[in-house]
Amino acid sequence: MNTKTSSLFTIVLTVVMTTTALTQQQMPDVAIKYEHNLMPVPSFVQFYEGKLKVTQSLTVSTPQYSDARLQAAIDRFLKRMQSRTGLTFGQGIAADATSPTIEIRCSKSGEVIPSLDEDESYELDIGLSKVLLTAPTVVGALRGLETVLQLVSSNRDGYYFPVAKVKDQPRFRWRGLLIDIGRHYEPPEVLKRNLDAMAAVKLNVFHWHLTEDQGFRIESKKFPKLHQMGSDGLFYTQEQAKEIIDYARQRGIRVVPEFDIPGHSTSWLVGHPELGSAAGPYKIERQAGIFEPALDPTRDDVYKFLDTFLGEMAALFPDAYMHIGGDENEGKQWDRNPNIQAFMKEKGIANNHALQAYFNQRLLKILEKHKKKMIGWDEILQPELPKNAVIHSWRGTAALAEAAKKGYDGILSNGYYIDLSYPTSQHYVVDPIPADTTLTTEEQKHILGGEATMWGEYVGPETIDSRIWPRTAAIAERLWSPRTTTDIDDMYRRLSVISVQLEELGLTHERNVDVLLRRLANSKDIAPLKLLVSLVEPVKEYRRGEQRPSTMLSPLTGFVDAARPDSESGRRLRKTVDDFLSDAPRFQLHATDLEKTFKDWRDCQLLLAALIDRSSALHEVKPLATDVRNLGDAGLEALQFITSGQTPPPEWLQAKSELLNEAAKPKGAVELVVVTSVRQLVTAATELPQLKTMSSAEWKKHVSMLASSADKK
Amino acid sequence: MNTKTSSLFTIVLTVVMTTTALTQQQMPDVAIKYEHNLMPVPSFVQFYEGKLKVTQSLTVSTPQYSDARLQAAIDRFLKRMQSRTGLTFGQGIAADATSPTIEIRCSKSGEVIPSLDEDESYELDIGLSKVLLTAPTVVGALRGLETVLQLVSSNRDGYYFPVAKVKDQPRFRWRGLLIDIGRHYEPPEVLKRNLDAMAAVKLNVFHWHLTEDQGFRIESKKFPKLHQMGSDGLFYTQEQAKEIIDYARQRGIRVVPEFDIPGHSTSWLVGHPELGSAAGPYKIERQAGIFEPALDPTRDDVYKFLDTFLGEMAALFPDAYMHIGGDENEGKQWDRNPNIQAFMKEKGIANNHALQAYFNQRLLKILEKHKKKMIGWDEILQPELPKNAVIHSWRGTAALAEAAKKGYDGILSNGYYIDLSYPTSQHYVVDPIPADTTLTTEEQKHILGGEATMWGEYVGPETIDSRIWPRTAAIAERLWSPRTTTDIDDMYRRLSVISVQLEELGLTHERNVDVLLRRLANSKDIAPLKLLVSLVEPVKEYRRGEQRPSTMLSPLTGFVDAARPDSESGRRLRKTVDDFLSDAPRFQLHATDLEKTFKDWRDCQLLLAALIDRSSALHEVKPLATDVRNLGDAGLEALQFITSGQTPPPEWLQAKSELLNEAAKPKGAVELVVVTSVRQLVTAATELPQLKTMSSAEWKKHVSMLASSADKK
Repeated sequence: MNTKTSSLFTIVLTVVMTTTALTQQQMPDVAIKYEHNLMPVPSFVQFYEGKLKVTQSLTVSTPQYSDARLQAAIDRFLKRMQSRTGLTFGQGIAADATSPTIEIRCSKSGEVIPSLDEDESYELDIGLSKVLLTAPTVVGALRGLETVLQLVSSNRDGYYFPVAKVKDQPRFRWRGLLIDIGRHYEPPEVLKRNLDAMAAVKLNVFHWHLTEDQGFRIESKKFPKLHQMGSDGLFYTQEQAKEIIDYARQRGIRVVPEFDIPGHSTSWLVGHPELGSAAGPYKIERQAGIFEPALDPTRDDVYKFLDTFLGEMAALFPDAYMHIGGDENEGKQWDRNPNIQAFMKEKGIANNHALQAYFNQRLLKILEKHKKKMIGWDEILQPELPKNAVIHSWRGTAALAEAAKKGYDGILSNGYYIDLSYPTSQHYVVDPIPADTTLTTEEQKHILGGEATMWGEYVGPETIDSRIWPRTAAIAERLWSPRTTTDIDDMYRRLSVISVQLEELGLTHERNVDVLLRRLANSKDIAPLKLLVSLVEPVKEYRRGEQRPSTMLSPLTGFVDAARPDSESGRRLRKTVDDFLSDAPRFQLHATDLEKTFKDWRDCQLLLAALIDRSSALHEVKPLATDVRNLGDAGLEALQFITSGQTPPPEWLQAKSELLNEAAKPKGAVELVVVTSVRQLVTAATELPQLKTMSSAEWKKHVSMLASSADKK
Repeated sequence: MNTKTSSLFTIVLTVVMTTTALTQQQMPDVAIKYEHNLMPVPSFVQFYEGKLKVTQSLTVSTPQYSDARLQAAIDRFLKRMQSRTGLTFGQGIAADATSPTIEIRCSKSGEVIPSLDEDESYELDIGLSKVLLTAPTVVGALRGLETVLQLVSSNRDGYYFPVAKVKDQPRFRWRGLLIDIGRHYEPPEVLKRNLDAMAAVKLNVFHWHLTEDQGFRIESKKFPKLHQMGSDGLFYTQEQAKEIIDYARQRGIRVVPEFDIPGHSTSWLVGHPELGSAAGPYKIERQAGIFEPALDPTRDDVYKFLDTFLGEMAALFPDAYMHIGGDENEGKQWDRNPNIQAFMKEKGIANNHALQAYFNQRLLKILEKHKKKMIGWDEILQPELPKNAVIHSWRGTAALAEAAKKGYDGILSNGYYIDLSYPTSQHYVVDPIPADTTLTTEEQKHILGGEATMWGEYVGPETIDSRIWPRTAAIAERLWSPRTTTDIDDMYRRLSVISVQLEELGLTHERNVDVLLRRLANSKDIAPLKLLVSLVEPVKEYRRGEQRPSTMLSPLTGFVDAARPDSESGRRLRKTVDDFLSDAPRFQLHATDLEKTFKDWRDCQLLLAALIDRSSALHEVKPLATDVRNLGDAGLEALQFITSGQTPPPEWLQAKSELLNEAAKPKGAVELVVVTSVRQLVTAATELPQLKTMSSAEWKKHVSMLASSADKK
């Protein structure tokens, strides 16, 4: 996974391009290496000597096709260019500019309603005097404009575009982000800024998870009790939904609504208990988990209700697909309902899976009537499911491949559960069509793509961005870029730049960390808290609920909410420790780095203690402050042993191991991510007293062994 | 201005209170000093021994009057309490709770439409077992809830309310914030979060400056060309306006719309050139400044137009007042228009002032017809102005007093121009009725209050909060609290806490500084930029435009936009240098502080240079980096001379003075605020070689002289 690939630094020196776009300009013909910040990496990109200067006289022209959507996109593009460069582009857009800086040759609008069939390809030809962007559709042009924005560079002389050629199209047609606003509501402006971010990294499906046990969040004019009684007043009006759909369309993004049934439906039943499989009354669910309430699949009036409701929604949401969820229904209400049991017996329905298949069959007819294709989670894949349904897999690539072999289209979400707090690298290596796939080329066409899933148990408007971004940009790359784009270090390097650029769209993933810490401290002086938060991550999977019980009505303002997945400090420390232990000739340099780091940890406990004493909401952090001091001490002592070549006494290892084990335990639903690195040093200290007498080669060999054993502890 | 006053630490030990509210509970009877963070300071507050613990079983009850507005306010209150304490209040609101934590006794809703006559008073009686909030109106209860939120405190044992009694009402009835969205548009969510912040500091008038030369920002259904052609599409629909008005009403805030005429009206004329005093066509103004276009005051069709348009607006905006601007019309178009000149001759109108008076007379009749009272800037005060008009003074307290003597109500904005980048302390000392007022008690009643003015030349959605907050909280205090509340140090101490609390409402004044710096650096590593930005302020008054030319279409993303008024680092340094120079016995302690500071300055130049080289938008900052290094060097050298008791050579003073003079010059529209402090040290170094032989008293005397002479340089 760590091999440099040609997608990053293309080393082909001579490229014969035959398209019109790439022969328009006199191009310097010597290809060069150029460290770009593109994410997702284009399918083909090549840089050349030379720069196209960006000045305030920059103009954009659209000599061929243009429309309101393209003009609006160019307007946003120019504002973002201005915001980043500080320049004021006096002239802006002029279709007929004689020598535009950026010329967009676009053939047509593309799909009226964004769809799977959209042609998103584009080509860029950046010469010394202009940027030529060629795209068959406006959506292709939008994708190209995002690439142009990512290519803006700067040096002493000002801003510029590097001379380059790009020929780009997505690897997968379905590149989505699911946002669950059922468990916690997010206001429209949160969705809008996330749509902006999606467009920036070329995602094209917003999967709007609109109903959950904990909230029914879309206005129904046919059945107003659904949103009125099922949402605490936190729902989207149909006007707002239309605005979001249009906002997405402006950015070439589809909006796929999800109405999760027959399970996950408590909130439906608050206003309409008659739809349930058990007698009401029902209350909006306040806990996280899997719950019993489910629609009754045996009664005609339930299907009549769904026909009317889904018909209303089918008219509201123009996308060709409708997601019906279908997941995690354990059927406990069904088991206990004698009418349902009698129905099953009568119809010869063997079990709850078969009953749900029956439900889906009838649902499918309703969707067909309203001209929608069905998409649902793995569970919907039952023997009689028609072939035009799409399987959305939370189970994994194997389940997806199996479905593809049976002829079903599918999209992958297993591996892209960004709510689980795993590092970016872990999502990045998940490929909807793994290299070792057994699918034929024809079968592979059924794999439409994937979706990152932002499940809403523990996110609110202040924190959701920090759970989605920047990690989702790497998933977007996996779904857009060639399979060979797999250099993790380079991904992280580019991700860091993209993360900053996302802020210009209003994303709050960086800025709100300090906001939360200041609130916790009730003060602006948060330096020690910032250090501490940089060393932790939220606990993985769904362990937060166990460690720090809360309901959907609890505030999301704790230390764990300020903590973010994929700690950069953790990554840096791992690298420094690796370098220190493997780079004997320069170990003193790394030792100095490490010493400073560990001293900061040791010293922060006192400062933290003062903050914690003043602010009760920080009390849960107190043991972490002790852990960090202990880690700092252990690191300093290990460094001292290693650099002096002395052997630590056996009781030292024993004592440190206990402290390390304690520090490795999560507290307040966060975990210190630097324990492994310190453990690596402590182990090295006990096993490497002979440092000074070792050759560099011996040292490296020894250490690589140590590193792997430290990981296992 | 620096005397501690009884409003902060009331030292009256025995207070006889006769109201119902204050005799409800058994109160500990020993008053104590307690350092609170209330802003604005209540008119009476007294603390006692004891704490009322805040736990998750907190409840609020409203046993007497309640309504939807109060319930919604309590709901917001509980969410903010949760967000700050991390607690989940399981039970929430229950009108009939038997032992509520917070009991709100409210008599009635108050004014249906928020008005000047609203009773905003309330009383708090916080005992060991409950908080009793008594208020004659719901608006009074809202004000009281904000005080309760500011009283939440924390220690090792958790959150609590201090036992206390508060009896509070505003000193002035009109406490406003003007936001000019004409020059730069602000989306509704920006206005909403600012309304939240206004409510938090008990402001009660949102003055919505809706039209300007640079933008006509309210939808007119009668004359749609106004907003369609005058706003670049950036306007508020009437639906949005209603939403804002309701949002404000929910918070007990009036919305006073301003339609600035006859001048400041270019944007009106883009769609309706026939209203102008010169032939069109007109274009939306893109520059800052005062411009010629003005409505033609001589033509009946202009008044007919205004009658229809203002009638439409009068129906939309329920407030009793309508602001008609009336400022800064120089009448140049009038001078050049022969028809207007002929009209003046015919009617015996002597000059443009008289012509504007004529215009206002006719306008007044229109407003009367639509049942609105007129408010306008100083200029409207002409001999025949009827007494029910209100004068809004940008000229000052003298002009306001003069109007009051003539019988006119007035509000003050001179001194509260927060767009001028002056420090909070400067606004804080401005009193609408100064201590030396010559107005009689009866005349003083005409002074209704004041308004902070956020003029929009240089603010956008990302930066406007940082220009309004936290400084406006101190103006809010001036308009609410007793005149005797004047301790500037204590104001700054409380302001710093309130500033953090405002963030929980979504305000971005703190968080967006780093966002702007990261964008400028195109990187997350911004430590040296943060240091630099902490040492500067935007240039004062309207000098930004001279130093850094821009238009209304220019980006607001420069270093100057990240800089904020009223540098905290500047204030701290002034204090440390004062302490160092006046506190001889402990000078070594201060010297160590100063040395660290100056070394950081000296060392940041190299780091800054690397950042600046990579990011062209930062080039304008380069000379500042040099200045800061020079200041650091000068500070270190001066320290060295002072602490060693050596006399610096005369050429040293000469050289340093030149560097200081250079550093004092603004660059990129920001100015270093630490130059005076360094100059003070340099001067001290040349004049105080005899340090070691001086007595403490001699030293202090000498230094106070020096300090005042350094300021003059």
